[in-house]
Amino acid sequence: MTPETPGFPAVWLRHNCPCQDCRDPVTGQRLLKITDIPNGLVATVTAQHDTEIVVTFAPDGHRSVFRRDWLAAQALMGDGADPDPRTEDGKVLWRAADLAAPPATDWAAYTSDDRVREDCLDAVARYGCALLRGVPASPGMVLEVAATFGYVRETNYGKLFDVRVEPDPDNLAFTSREIAPHTDNPYRDPVPTLQLLHCLRDARSDGSEAGGDTGLVDGFAAAAALRAEDPESFGVLTGTPVPFGYVDKETELTARQPLISLSPRGRIAGIRYNDRSMLPLRLPPAEAEAAYAAIGVWARLLSRPEFLLRLRLAPGDCLIFDNTRVLHARTGFTATAERHLQGCYADLDGLLSTLAVLRRQ
Amino acid sequence: MTPETPGFPAVWLRHNCPCQDCRDPVTGQRLLKITDIPNGLVATVTAQHDTEIVVTFAPDGHRSVFRRDWLAAQALMGDGADPDPRTEDGKVLWRAADLAAPPATDWAAYTSDDRVREDCLDAVARYGCALLRGVPASPGMVLEVAATFGYVRETNYGKLFDVRVEPDPDNLAFTSREIAPHTDNPYRDPVPTLQLLHCLRDARSDGSEAGGDTGLVDGFAAAAALRAEDPESFGVLTGTPVPFGYVDKETELTARQPLISLSPRGRIAGIRYNDRSMLPLRLPPAEAEAAYAAIGVWARLLSRPEFLLRLRLAPGDCLIFDNTRVLHARTGFTATAERHLQGCYADLDGLLSTLAVLRRQ
Repeated sequence: MTPETPGFPAVWLRHNCPCQDCRDPVTGQRLLKITDIPNGLVATVTAQHDTEIVVTFAPDGHRSVFRRDWLAAQALMGDGADPDPRTEDGKVLWRAADLAAPPATDWAAYTSDDRVREDCLDAVARYGCALLRGVPASPGMVLEVAATFGYVRETNYGKLFDVRVEPDPDNLAFTSREIAPHTDNPYRDPVPTLQLLHCLRDARSDGSEAGGDTGLVDGFAAAAALRAEDPESFGVLTGTPVPFGYVDKETELTARQPLISLSPRGRIAGIRYNDRSMLPLRLPPAEAEAAYAAIGVWARLLSRPEFLLRLRLAPGDCLIFDNTRVLHARTGFTATAERHLQGCYADLDGLLSTLAVLRRQ
Repeated sequence: MTPETPGFPAVWLRHNCPCQDCRDPVTGQRLLKITDIPNGLVATVTAQHDTEIVVTFAPDGHRSVFRRDWLAAQALMGDGADPDPRTEDGKVLWRAADLAAPPATDWAAYTSDDRVREDCLDAVARYGCALLRGVPASPGMVLEVAATFGYVRETNYGKLFDVRVEPDPDNLAFTSREIAPHTDNPYRDPVPTLQLLHCLRDARSDGSEAGGDTGLVDGFAAAAALRAEDPESFGVLTGTPVPFGYVDKETELTARQPLISLSPRGRIAGIRYNDRSMLPLRLPPAEAEAAYAAIGVWARLLSRPEFLLRLRLAPGDCLIFDNTRVLHARTGFTATAERHLQGCYADLDGLLSTLAVLRRQ
């Protein structure tokens, strides 16, 4: 470490050397192995130019040239100064009153203007949800929406699934029942990190009474509220893996994850909650009682109206939301109503990659 | 809690009531909401039959009938007695000498006999790898192999990717270079949890000298060794999110996860390591030095010959391995050799579901 490379340990500089021996010029991938870095490495600035500095290492004599602006941008930082964008630190947390409605975008503009698409995907990254309006209400379009930013995650429900009343449902989603706020597929690991729901027909299309409204809850905001109000329950929930399961004739999925996941730095990083598919907790009695008590506190907090953003999907609306953060719900509706949504799953990494590429322009 | 329902708290019994009001008889999903369970719940056994007991709850008077054998199977347990099959507790850890070769299965038997298929998928679950032999060496077959147990995870590399020497590679995999043990796509979150590699042509098919051998390392066994030998480095690695990145013209992926992930119970649950794509750590200098030192210890441990299971894929061989556990490597080969593998990604949850369904029979 020298005054010209403040804060950068020698091993850091060596591991990040950009020379052609250390990094492949075509792929940009590292060729240097960390095991090739000698012990007791010392870095000395041996030349300074306007835009670059030269660092020479002892004992191996390797020479690295670093651009000054690149080094400055890499400044080493403390906890929280380089926030993980997938945790609460990279998000705008919200309650219903903060948003009024999910950030909405017109499909025609989305498909023709990269800036509009960037804003829409940015809304998913920051708020956990976005609404596309005017997507043609034709079957299969939801897959085309997913293809604009990423890749569909196929599951036992297919590449896409139809959400409508079915005579012989495998899942309560396929009935007219009220569904409380939940995340999808908690019994899957890795869980699909994005969900799309495209409305082909709403509950009133046939003239029946209202119903089938959609609700969204920012689970990160709710978890932050729980941490502030009841840190003990928060601690139980983040430390207790909860088993979830789904069984049908051809499928038998189970996963065990906490209802609230933390990053290694202790920041809120994931929400997983679905009362319908929670399996019996297998814990010593006192722990089981404490866990159910904490789950009850969490469920009551999640059902507070202040968290529930209500909306009614109209034909052509396509909702995109972060299934690791935002819980979704629907009100019950008349069983004869021909409400019909199509949904699919996708993943956040693909969406965030598309967003990063759009931001380059 | 009563002598007839030893260890089951009242709230546990109530949340797991199997009656038609509490659980949908068609889907098997829970209808009861945890928020509907009254506070101060008391459970009393009010009738006992040969195969069932009746529990009545105060204050709401709800009545549940539990099968005795079901209750006995749900016995509440202590830490470690109900191991998470996705962590080290559900695995058989191995070093090269323990396996000699990955558990191998003939493709014809695999496709015609459910017991053979079950054994092969069980090997992936327990050992983290399995080899199918005699898979027709024709392009695209790797997708058919994946379809026998789950769903392909499409990425920026496509539904499948060709691993061969390319003139203008985006990735060092597509060169003839040696590749040290690594997991794939550490810059992706969620990371693909399974990888398939299907050999269409090996490095010697054109008569050139040997090379392009495959190596596998059980990362869970290596992490357990690190924990035993150097708990301090183990603690640094499990507590430090490491940023990984991949950039090309159309892609810009980043993810931050520890190199060794633990379950909330502190058990080894995931390995993520690829020196080629590690981004600069942005930590205060002392933490950065400690992190690089721990990464160096880990990399040296991973490169010990005792962990490296070597094999040579022959045309028709298809390797399936757990990308959250098993690192893979290859030796360098002559750049003119026409070695050609096709790979794809898939997910463990689908494979484990297929395995669970096969086990029902």
